[in-house]
Amino acid sequence: MKDTIFGKIIRREIPAEIVYEDDETLAFLDIMPNSPGHTLVVPKEPSENMLDISEGSLLSVMKTVKKIAPAIKTAMEADGFNILVNNGTEAGQQVFHTHVHIIPRYKSAAFQKFPPGKPNVKVTPEELAEVAEKIRTTLA
Amino acid sequence: MKDTIFGKIIRREIPAEIVYEDDETLAFLDIMPNSPGHTLVVPKEPSENMLDISEGSLLSVMKTVKKIAPAIKTAMEADGFNILVNNGTEAGQQVFHTHVHIIPRYKSAAFQKFPPGKPNVKVTPEELAEVAEKIRTTLA
Repeated sequence: MKDTIFGKIIRREIPAEIVYEDDETLAFLDIMPNSPGHTLVVPKEPSENMLDISEGSLLSVMKTVKKIAPAIKTAMEADGFNILVNNGTEAGQQVFHTHVHIIPRYKSAAFQKFPPGKPNVKVTPEELAEVAEKIRTTLA
Repeated sequence: MKDTIFGKIIRREIPAEIVYEDDETLAFLDIMPNSPGHTLVVPKEPSENMLDISEGSLLSVMKTVKKIAPAIKTAMEADGFNILVNNGTEAGQQVFHTHVHIIPRYKSAAFQKFPPGKPNVKVTPEELAEVAEKIRTTLA
């Protein structure tokens, strides 16, 4: 499989706002968030999507999702969250390294957008850093 | 937690087009599909969503998703699929028993609807039965 931007993030070749890491997985903020706190969880073991991922790798990713999604909700004072995995171009997959979206949802009209649509939140690196810090603090 | 329609389906108190079952999980067709083959996977152990589900129950559900999603894609001749979990009313959750949506995606313009929107496919019980039979046959 081809290298992707997520492979580069895992190897620290390009920067990302990392909120969680363990031996099997990495979680970092989406730079084009659908809502504030939009986080991606990726396995370190390479796979394109849920068609070729190993069961162990998928379960590791889901353990991380279960661990961090409630903390993201709390840190962001969100009212709910969607878990989304896009498998294949026709399903909206853009980066071919398996990734699980954690998308906080808010009562606030500004972010009342269900289901998840196109990226709709303009963010600066400083705003991303602030969000990441909130999540890291809650997780710590 | 309150009983839900999914609890009734698990206990066979109301009918559903079941495509897969094991000791921990049940998978059946959504009666208001977002696209043909739209399937729900639920844990038998009660939980409202990913905030209160046990880790074991979540991992069982994801094992079932990994097992059946490729078969659904094959059976339906789909081009991709979304995995979606709505947690909380603000995230679009309507039934408060944890459930994972498997939503096939198609190149066909008729079903080219990403991201998942409101139920948009009119189906009859006969159409549902036909879809379920395709998936069961592929899984068998």
